[in-house]
Amino acid sequence: MADHRLEASPQAPDDESAEVFGLGPDFIDMVVEGLDNDHAAAVSRLVSTLHHADLADLIERLSRDQRARLLEMGRDSLNYDFLPELDETVRDEVVELMGFADLAAALADLDSDDAVYIVENLGQEERDQVLARLPGDQRMAIEHGLAFEEDTAGRLMQRELVAVPSYWTVGETIDYLRSNARLPDEFYQLFVVDPRHRPIGTVRLSRLLRCKRPTRLGDIMDPNVPVIASTTDQEDVAFLFRQRDLLSAPVIDPSGRLIGRITIDDIVDVIDEEAEDDMLRMAGLSETHVYETVYKTTKSRFLWLIVNLGTAVLASLVIGLFESTIQQVVALAVLMPIVASMGGNAGTQTMTVAVRALATRELAADNALRLIGKEALVGLLNGVMLAVISGAVAWAWFGRPEIGLVIGAAMVINLVGAGLAGILIPLGLEKLKVDPALASGVFLTTVTDVVGFFAFLGLAALVLL
Amino acid sequence: MADHRLEASPQAPDDESAEVFGLGPDFIDMVVEGLDNDHAAAVSRLVSTLHHADLADLIERLSRDQRARLLEMGRDSLNYDFLPELDETVRDEVVELMGFADLAAALADLDSDDAVYIVENLGQEERDQVLARLPGDQRMAIEHGLAFEEDTAGRLMQRELVAVPSYWTVGETIDYLRSNARLPDEFYQLFVVDPRHRPIGTVRLSRLLRCKRPTRLGDIMDPNVPVIASTTDQEDVAFLFRQRDLLSAPVIDPSGRLIGRITIDDIVDVIDEEAEDDMLRMAGLSETHVYETVYKTTKSRFLWLIVNLGTAVLASLVIGLFESTIQQVVALAVLMPIVASMGGNAGTQTMTVAVRALATRELAADNALRLIGKEALVGLLNGVMLAVISGAVAWAWFGRPEIGLVIGAAMVINLVGAGLAGILIPLGLEKLKVDPALASGVFLTTVTDVVGFFAFLGLAALVLL
Repeated sequence: MADHRLEASPQAPDDESAEVFGLGPDFIDMVVEGLDNDHAAAVSRLVSTLHHADLADLIERLSRDQRARLLEMGRDSLNYDFLPELDETVRDEVVELMGFADLAAALADLDSDDAVYIVENLGQEERDQVLARLPGDQRMAIEHGLAFEEDTAGRLMQRELVAVPSYWTVGETIDYLRSNARLPDEFYQLFVVDPRHRPIGTVRLSRLLRCKRPTRLGDIMDPNVPVIASTTDQEDVAFLFRQRDLLSAPVIDPSGRLIGRITIDDIVDVIDEEAEDDMLRMAGLSETHVYETVYKTTKSRFLWLIVNLGTAVLASLVIGLFESTIQQVVALAVLMPIVASMGGNAGTQTMTVAVRALATRELAADNALRLIGKEALVGLLNGVMLAVISGAVAWAWFGRPEIGLVIGAAMVINLVGAGLAGILIPLGLEKLKVDPALASGVFLTTVTDVVGFFAFLGLAALVLL
Repeated sequence: MADHRLEASPQAPDDESAEVFGLGPDFIDMVVEGLDNDHAAAVSRLVSTLHHADLADLIERLSRDQRARLLEMGRDSLNYDFLPELDETVRDEVVELMGFADLAAALADLDSDDAVYIVENLGQEERDQVLARLPGDQRMAIEHGLAFEEDTAGRLMQRELVAVPSYWTVGETIDYLRSNARLPDEFYQLFVVDPRHRPIGTVRLSRLLRCKRPTRLGDIMDPNVPVIASTTDQEDVAFLFRQRDLLSAPVIDPSGRLIGRITIDDIVDVIDEEAEDDMLRMAGLSETHVYETVYKTTKSRFLWLIVNLGTAVLASLVIGLFESTIQQVVALAVLMPIVASMGGNAGTQTMTVAVRALATRELAADNALRLIGKEALVGLLNGVMLAVISGAVAWAWFGRPEIGLVIGAAMVINLVGAGLAGILIPLGLEKLKVDPALASGVFLTTVTDVVGFFAFLGLAALVLL
């Protein structure tokens, strides 16, 4: 048996490869071989040793056929905690393969927040079909969760928690915890509530354990409990958790009653998504889509590309204004992409900093002016240095000092413009309540291309002709 | 007093603004006013209500003078837990303002991992000065932490933890926790160790609390404890925490002995930095630098811009090959940036997905080929659609169908090239153990510019002349 367990484990414990944790490629190969040859016993032995998050990763790597076979073989033995961990595209397929009856049975085993998360991503018809197959109390719990708006604390919270009155002693509390079976599987702190069930403090379990039995909870609780309204946006919740190093926090309804708790593991996912989303949106992507079909990927990226085509044509229109200038000095056509491209790069640097600083709240109304000034100055300094270099290169290349002068002047203008646009565009979008990451890229390159081509070709028309 | 506390709180509890948590601008204004007018009592009253992370944010927003005054006024009352939360630039200044004696006193109050974090960022001389002023055991603890390499589990871990033998009962354990004063302030689980102090399991506090006093820890512990070697990279640790929803995990030395624990709050910071770093590196930035000086910001960004200038000149050299073609058909100069820019945008989409998927391990050796094929296909499909549109635009604009044909064909070539380059470059860099995010951007735009200009102008030279 010892051998079996080693073989079945996702990796040998003394594996020294860079990928220390998670699935090894050999393990995936073994499962695939078992699935392709219908070795149900071997597959279920392999899969049974996996943590549910690793199981999700495994399922993502399989083909549709293999997924179907795995679900069929593991029908009674799989730990369906893997469902919320799946990539959206793969989850849609798995849900479809499972059918409504199996899905309902799986949901009944999940925590309420995870069940809500699965159901919220179903279509209206599928949602009704699955909910109809759930026991009444579980259906109600999920419907209650769905009643909160997406991306709010209400959606994120779990209803399972431990709430106790402040007049209880440590001893009474421990006795209650030992005797009450209907408590959540895992909890990190107790929520102390007043008679109207409003949270008034928290007691960390490590503190509870270290106090004598007769101590009253009211005397050891931490009264500085940040309470979260169920309507709070999940990014604000994430900010609070990160700022205060929280493990869990109470969620209240509009009347101030405790209705749930949010735990750090859900917040880790939010934090992860948040930074990822900014990064993806700046490149015009809605999601990573690694497991997305070619058709959907093409479609979602095309929308962004077509917007960019519009801005590229706009830049071409600017060039078109100077057709006769270019015809007379063809060197301009050779050099003009340099000015536009350097503006785009410098602007992207500023924009990335600004988008990230807005997300982490390091950039706000009180220091915006100072940072705008700083970016303009940085653009000016870098512009001057790049102007000298590119001017010298252009002079040496085409043997005309006035071409060097033109490219240098255009470079300074475009880099100051890029610095200003790089910070002002995200700030403006934030002010308009549009996600700064989503749209900054398009506007920015439009500005740097238009300013770059116009400054360079316009100056050339004035100076050279 | 009640009034005072409300006034002093960073925000009114019923504040309905978007920034629900954290510092309000009014609060910052009040502190600044107090500092500028030397109202020590008012300032210390305001500041005393702040969580240490909010205090760090406050200090970041102050000027150097104001920071010095705040540190002077709060010398005996400040909670120095704010130190590890500060932005690096600001922390360097605060450390300098504090002086070695005050810094040593502050470090003595911090958790060992936080103290190591502060000291590791000091220069060698400052480090020696501060360590010399620390009590012997604390100096040794910090030196021990510094002996581990940067960004490893050893650096990240805290030495304070609770380790218990498996033969203890729940009752004995609780009695031990109650009577022993030298335990960490906060802990989430007990580490069960064998006689040679090697971790063999963990007991969650919620589980300990729910079991009867005579139960043996060996019977309730979770033996599936992922142990982390002190040399493990912090990104691997973060992956494990995220994957398994861990709150804390034991760290072992090469002989397998338990030497520390890593907790989720440190991992949240790692996760946060990880996604941020990828985003920043793709834009050629090393850090957000919001509080960095103009000089340093200019310098760090200039290095990236000069590399990009090189690639831009390379693209110009390609254009230069076709000077005579452009002279004959000046429309080419007008249209050529469109092809290059669309390739850059499409390539950035692919590259962003690839960099992120490498970081989250969704892209690995076993599915690389499939995803390369997918990206080439997506590039082909989007290329064909954009070719039709841009070809039509060019034909309509310049009245020559063959120009539309040339731009369309170049678009298809460049978008397939962009898709391939967007995934192959990050994969190649990862294989060479270079951070894919760091260098992908430069290589990618070089490829899309060179291929774009060459395909468009080259085809034009063949077809139009």
